[in-house]
Amino acid sequence: MELIKYLQERKKLIDEELDRYLPQPDEAPETLCEAMRYSVFAGGKRLRPILVMAAAEAVGKDKELVLPTACALEFIHTYSLIHDDLPAMDDDDLRRGKPTCHKVYGEAMAILAGDALLTRAFEVISKNREVPGVDDAAVVRVIQIVAHGAGCSGMVGGQVADLEAEGKTADKDTMLYIHANKTGALFKAALCAGAVLAGADEEAIAALERYGEQFGLAFQITDDILDVEGKTELIGKPVGSDTKNQKATYPSIYGLEKSYRMAEESVAQAVDALRNFSHKAEPLRQIARYLLTRSY
Amino acid sequence: MELIKYLQERKKLIDEELDRYLPQPDEAPETLCEAMRYSVFAGGKRLRPILVMAAAEAVGKDKELVLPTACALEFIHTYSLIHDDLPAMDDDDLRRGKPTCHKVYGEAMAILAGDALLTRAFEVISKNREVPGVDDAAVVRVIQIVAHGAGCSGMVGGQVADLEAEGKTADKDTMLYIHANKTGALFKAALCAGAVLAGADEEAIAALERYGEQFGLAFQITDDILDVEGKTELIGKPVGSDTKNQKATYPSIYGLEKSYRMAEESVAQAVDALRNFSHKAEPLRQIARYLLTRSY
Repeated sequence: MELIKYLQERKKLIDEELDRYLPQPDEAPETLCEAMRYSVFAGGKRLRPILVMAAAEAVGKDKELVLPTACALEFIHTYSLIHDDLPAMDDDDLRRGKPTCHKVYGEAMAILAGDALLTRAFEVISKNREVPGVDDAAVVRVIQIVAHGAGCSGMVGGQVADLEAEGKTADKDTMLYIHANKTGALFKAALCAGAVLAGADEEAIAALERYGEQFGLAFQITDDILDVEGKTELIGKPVGSDTKNQKATYPSIYGLEKSYRMAEESVAQAVDALRNFSHKAEPLRQIARYLLTRSY
Repeated sequence: MELIKYLQERKKLIDEELDRYLPQPDEAPETLCEAMRYSVFAGGKRLRPILVMAAAEAVGKDKELVLPTACALEFIHTYSLIHDDLPAMDDDDLRRGKPTCHKVYGEAMAILAGDALLTRAFEVISKNREVPGVDDAAVVRVIQIVAHGAGCSGMVGGQVADLEAEGKTADKDTMLYIHANKTGALFKAALCAGAVLAGADEEAIAALERYGEQFGLAFQITDDILDVEGKTELIGKPVGSDTKNQKATYPSIYGLEKSYRMAEESVAQAVDALRNFSHKAEPLRQIARYLLTRSY
């Protein structure tokens, strides 16, 4: 299996589906449609949707079964970036090298485009019931999982903790809480959602949840490392912006060397969570290992 | 039936339920929980939840069947007010006579409290599956209905149109679009949600949807009239704020007299939509008529 090619193909598939699930100009005010689309197509890697699909495949189902939910996770991720970049929040002008939503469409429209993407996500998950082979009970459970992971006890909770920690000295427990929630919760939800829709048994769901948790950790640690080591032109934002904003990061607390080892350990645990899975979980194993070679 | 007493009792019930469905301090960052709670308990009439319950009762079911979804509608309404009041949007310092969320908790927290309430709404609707007598298919359909009504083709779409119309001369079609979506769509969703959860047949669902549509219109027209005629201490915001913001309103386009008659006509049509319903739809009929006597 060639991971790079796999990721490219999956990204292409997801981009096509995202296009289908975004509102068409006759469905909503034109500028709103444009702003939503602008941010969704501002260059994401589609990692969360790819993980939703890979989870379904790991338990032996087709990726087509979970496509709407895969797109919904990307909508939620995109909305969180739009709101995160707002002047009242991180006040970022650039995201992945492109002007942020509020720089292009203004603050009010950016807030509303984020709101609309979040709401759309739940509409699109509910449409997953129309895919043959998916039952209603699974869809309701997925909505509960995703809402929980994205809300006050998950992603938004992490954002708030992040906000409240700024300008204070980095504290270990706070940082762990921030990362487990701000980034980790949605990854975990992506894996669980794929597993539940695919009709996995509870043991497999729990294993994929563990994978998601460790994956999220490894993702965040490598992200923090990149912020120190990466190159501006590759990550699309100024290197060292976390330090500038006095954000608590793995390197700032544990140092670079130990952070690397922690990322390796999380990847090992993610892969270990899949020990009872067949070769169909190979993409998930490879994607986890791939985190350690990230350069963007 | 004494409507005032009915509304008070229902509001009390909903307030208790809202309290249960809001995050407890051990579930999420404390300030976030506080901000969500502050805005939810800043004095709403609970009209949307009351309509969800009344719709279920109109088709012969218990109000208890739909309580989680009723609360979810109030969370969505509250989130929309929080975001609407932000400096980048309407920039309001007061709402129902109390400082707005961002005045108390700051802009960033207000954005996140709104996001968290919107997300929580879908989590809470998904919990409606746990109520005996509710089936999963109905819950998924309700999520689709509510997300559609609240999103880019509904409430958020209306907000965007409202935003884009400000400072321009009031145009009739635009105003109708704004009101049908900004306020109407969520009322319509409330009625449909109650009906679908209660297992109503398609004919009854369609009738309640028509009621919701006309109710929303009458609500908006009387709201516009109050903005001209009401007293600041009763509505909790400066009288004439719509005129100040150059918002297109019914009175500004049709004049006060004709606006009154249009509100009456909408109420009549709302009541007419229920002509095949028994005495169990009496609360809905009375609530609609009540709009014409609003003084707050």
